[in-house]
Amino acid sequence: MTTHPKEMNGAESVVRSLHAAGVDVCFANPGTSEMQFVDALDRTKLMHCVLGLFEGVVTGAADGYARMSGKPAVTLLHLAPGFANAAANLHNARKARVPMVNLVGDHALRHQKYDAPLSADIKGACAPFSDWVRSGRDAGSFASDAMEALRIAKGAPGRVATLIAPADIGWDEGGKMAAEIAPDGPVPLDGTALNAAVRALESGEKTVIIVGNSVLEDVAALALLQGIADKTGAQFVAPTSNRRMERGQGRVPVSKIPYAINDALARLAAYRHAILVESVPPVGFFAYPGKPSLLLPEACQIVTLAGVDGDGPMALATLADRIGAKPAKARTTAMPARPSAGAITLGSLAAALANALPDDAIVIDEAVTAGGALFPAGDAAKPNSWLALTGGSIGIGIPLSAGAAIARPDRPVITLQADGSAMYTIQGLWTQAREGSNVTTIILANRAYEILKGELHNVGAQPGEDALNMLNLDRPELDFVALARGMGVPGRRVEDVKELMHAIEDAAAEPGPFLIEAMI
Amino acid sequence: MTTHPKEMNGAESVVRSLHAAGVDVCFANPGTSEMQFVDALDRTKLMHCVLGLFEGVVTGAADGYARMSGKPAVTLLHLAPGFANAAANLHNARKARVPMVNLVGDHALRHQKYDAPLSADIKGACAPFSDWVRSGRDAGSFASDAMEALRIAKGAPGRVATLIAPADIGWDEGGKMAAEIAPDGPVPLDGTALNAAVRALESGEKTVIIVGNSVLEDVAALALLQGIADKTGAQFVAPTSNRRMERGQGRVPVSKIPYAINDALARLAAYRHAILVESVPPVGFFAYPGKPSLLLPEACQIVTLAGVDGDGPMALATLADRIGAKPAKARTTAMPARPSAGAITLGSLAAALANALPDDAIVIDEAVTAGGALFPAGDAAKPNSWLALTGGSIGIGIPLSAGAAIARPDRPVITLQADGSAMYTIQGLWTQAREGSNVTTIILANRAYEILKGELHNVGAQPGEDALNMLNLDRPELDFVALARGMGVPGRRVEDVKELMHAIEDAAAEPGPFLIEAMI
Repeated sequence: MTTHPKEMNGAESVVRSLHAAGVDVCFANPGTSEMQFVDALDRTKLMHCVLGLFEGVVTGAADGYARMSGKPAVTLLHLAPGFANAAANLHNARKARVPMVNLVGDHALRHQKYDAPLSADIKGACAPFSDWVRSGRDAGSFASDAMEALRIAKGAPGRVATLIAPADIGWDEGGKMAAEIAPDGPVPLDGTALNAAVRALESGEKTVIIVGNSVLEDVAALALLQGIADKTGAQFVAPTSNRRMERGQGRVPVSKIPYAINDALARLAAYRHAILVESVPPVGFFAYPGKPSLLLPEACQIVTLAGVDGDGPMALATLADRIGAKPAKARTTAMPARPSAGAITLGSLAAALANALPDDAIVIDEAVTAGGALFPAGDAAKPNSWLALTGGSIGIGIPLSAGAAIARPDRPVITLQADGSAMYTIQGLWTQAREGSNVTTIILANRAYEILKGELHNVGAQPGEDALNMLNLDRPELDFVALARGMGVPGRRVEDVKELMHAIEDAAAEPGPFLIEAMI
Repeated sequence: MTTHPKEMNGAESVVRSLHAAGVDVCFANPGTSEMQFVDALDRTKLMHCVLGLFEGVVTGAADGYARMSGKPAVTLLHLAPGFANAAANLHNARKARVPMVNLVGDHALRHQKYDAPLSADIKGACAPFSDWVRSGRDAGSFASDAMEALRIAKGAPGRVATLIAPADIGWDEGGKMAAEIAPDGPVPLDGTALNAAVRALESGEKTVIIVGNSVLEDVAALALLQGIADKTGAQFVAPTSNRRMERGQGRVPVSKIPYAINDALARLAAYRHAILVESVPPVGFFAYPGKPSLLLPEACQIVTLAGVDGDGPMALATLADRIGAKPAKARTTAMPARPSAGAITLGSLAAALANALPDDAIVIDEAVTAGGALFPAGDAAKPNSWLALTGGSIGIGIPLSAGAAIARPDRPVITLQADGSAMYTIQGLWTQAREGSNVTTIILANRAYEILKGELHNVGAQPGEDALNMLNLDRPELDFVALARGMGVPGRRVEDVKELMHAIEDAAAEPGPFLIEAMI
């Protein structure tokens, strides 16, 4: 623990206590009510402060940092409207079970009874996007509240904890250091569930193991999963959206449940048993007229071997032990041929990506409509970490990559970014430039909310001119190279797939951010 | 009322009923759960649909539309995260008492029990930023719920009403037209308060009349206010932030309570009586160590002649009648000399603006730190409507101007836009380009969250390097001309004030949007 002064204010006690507990990065978009934190961060120099020009950038970056560092991310936000701006990416982090602590400045306690312009029900605003909310009470207990938030965030599964920070308890003297509190570990494996899983695997009936969260992050657990499958004939699959998958050559490829409702139902139709490991029974992203919400067939028996609050790798190890399975070597996924010159299609783009991805890349996948076609590239490529949009709230890709790069400045980051989604948090490019991060953003420019055209069809409608007006983004055309330049990120537009492949290779090999607008 | 089919789904019944009640513009950022609205809007062709690339643009534009059209704005938003993205500008609209109806798509009722990726506590998310929230129950009652939302929104004062729209009640047949319900009028004038106001004016002690909301929008009411002041020696002032002020040559100039705490306290220190007309007792934006929250002196006696739910112009007319005051002619505000060539300072910019503002301009004021220096230009200029950031949540200027231009395509819109604030909702430039709106955005480029430097000082801190890192925006420099070009808006950077003045004049005279990056 670093030395610290005997007298300090509440804000400084929080900063110093968080740092003593291992937090050394703060993602921030501060306002007036956070000035005492800005001051404390400035004076202590204990944390790397990362500025976002919009709060959704701050929380998306914090999420990417947490996914790649394995440490909780801390954010600094401004009152109820600032929290609201941050909320969509907190929603995504929460669905991903990512550990995060938000410090949200509030009016001074004595000012709260007046309806000042920025007043709103801040606890009410935070609650729907947090697993835990508390408002600090005084300078002396402020740091211990922060340690409780950190404990909640780091417990299994990861959680979003929000500590509301009234301005005066930050200014006030009397801050006291607080020690870290050990978080709750995962829920232990249940013997009955283990027996049921073994029976399912030995039933001779079609069985699927649905593996999520930390299983997908653990190369050894995936090798055991393959061993269990080889031994029993069971198949395995991941949920549609995952916080991090360790993928690429030498690793076990795991397919995902498709996003499209008909494909998802078809993919799971044959199973009579499903074993859940750090996952939940899969449901459709949306309901559609005449389609079920639950994706597994009604006759399928579901065994929760480990819930999302369990320890999936340990559960798989125990299961493997029971049935005598050993870790299996990954089957090799064939590398697609390097594409020759020609138009950028989803197929040629996937081949370019598989070939161009550098070793140990971090791939950020907000490809949306293009996601299904591009996903297989991650299995064929060199080893990589693949991070996806987890809560369905678009606008995560650019910030997530900024944060991942801060956690792992030694690794190149490649972002597969749908154009419509990019515009929600385009400001994150500036943070990439400011931090000098090696992020290559590939804009998949189809000039439309393409996925919504399919969704309109799914509810039984045919788009007319006014509907297309709300789904097409071609009037005026967005120029992402100009947008990037406006925020200090160099870029170029590419229309040929071979050129695209070389652009990815060059950008990943160079330091600093780059943007490629791929016209598809 | 337009004719309508006997059989229609819930979404169509809502669209047709809103249109029959006078709503003909819909500001939208739809997703899957709103596809039935997209379809209904498409088939009926009853509304002009304005697309925003981010939800904060949608609600900021709806606010600008409502402020300039006098009609409630309707928005279409996507689930809890989409609402959260929209919330900061709803907060501003709510503080401005602007009438607004939000339709927020939700999962189908039968899908809500599953924890689908986009599920969250949507009612909880909407409540802190709405004056009224209801969730639709079935197709048959959906339109009557929408009419209730419209009634609430249009009541005095204007309110933000949010109707949550489960997807299936939009698809389902059985939609029924519903008729408009008359909204509540303003609270009647209270005779006791009127007598107290008369006594204050006749007391011979220093008296201030604080006038807000519809008084500031009413040229005749302002002339009466001046008459009351001339007759009694009372002074008058407006709150710091106002939804719309009718200003310029021939109109009564109204000063505002300053934003800075010391200036605000000094401005109001001498008064022994305050008469409130569509306003509340003024409070500081924030609390500061050693400063009061309430801005009027403790000894000041406050009379609420009309609350924010009252009828300010009527109250002033009654008061004038009681004391025998007549409408007064406005004093002429001197036009500053046209600036000659030289650097752009706040002073020279104010002079350029006063000279360059075209007749009948709509001025959008999100100048933030520069606001105090630029405000007087609105009194010297030709007649104009002046719209400000009302709830303190930055990121309103660009969307507000987009919506104001849709309400009044016949009037030029000039936006005074701080650079840091611009970046929260920069996507609104695309909507301006798409709609071909005559909006001239003047970026006040000081490369900093300049206002926060003052705020850091106000809490007693001196900024060091790390603090300045969180307050300066100069690494990398933003290039707003490139950002605008990326969204289809032409622009130029200007460093000379005479050139700036000509650029404003040229841009306002030309159709379509333009951006001027003014280096100050």
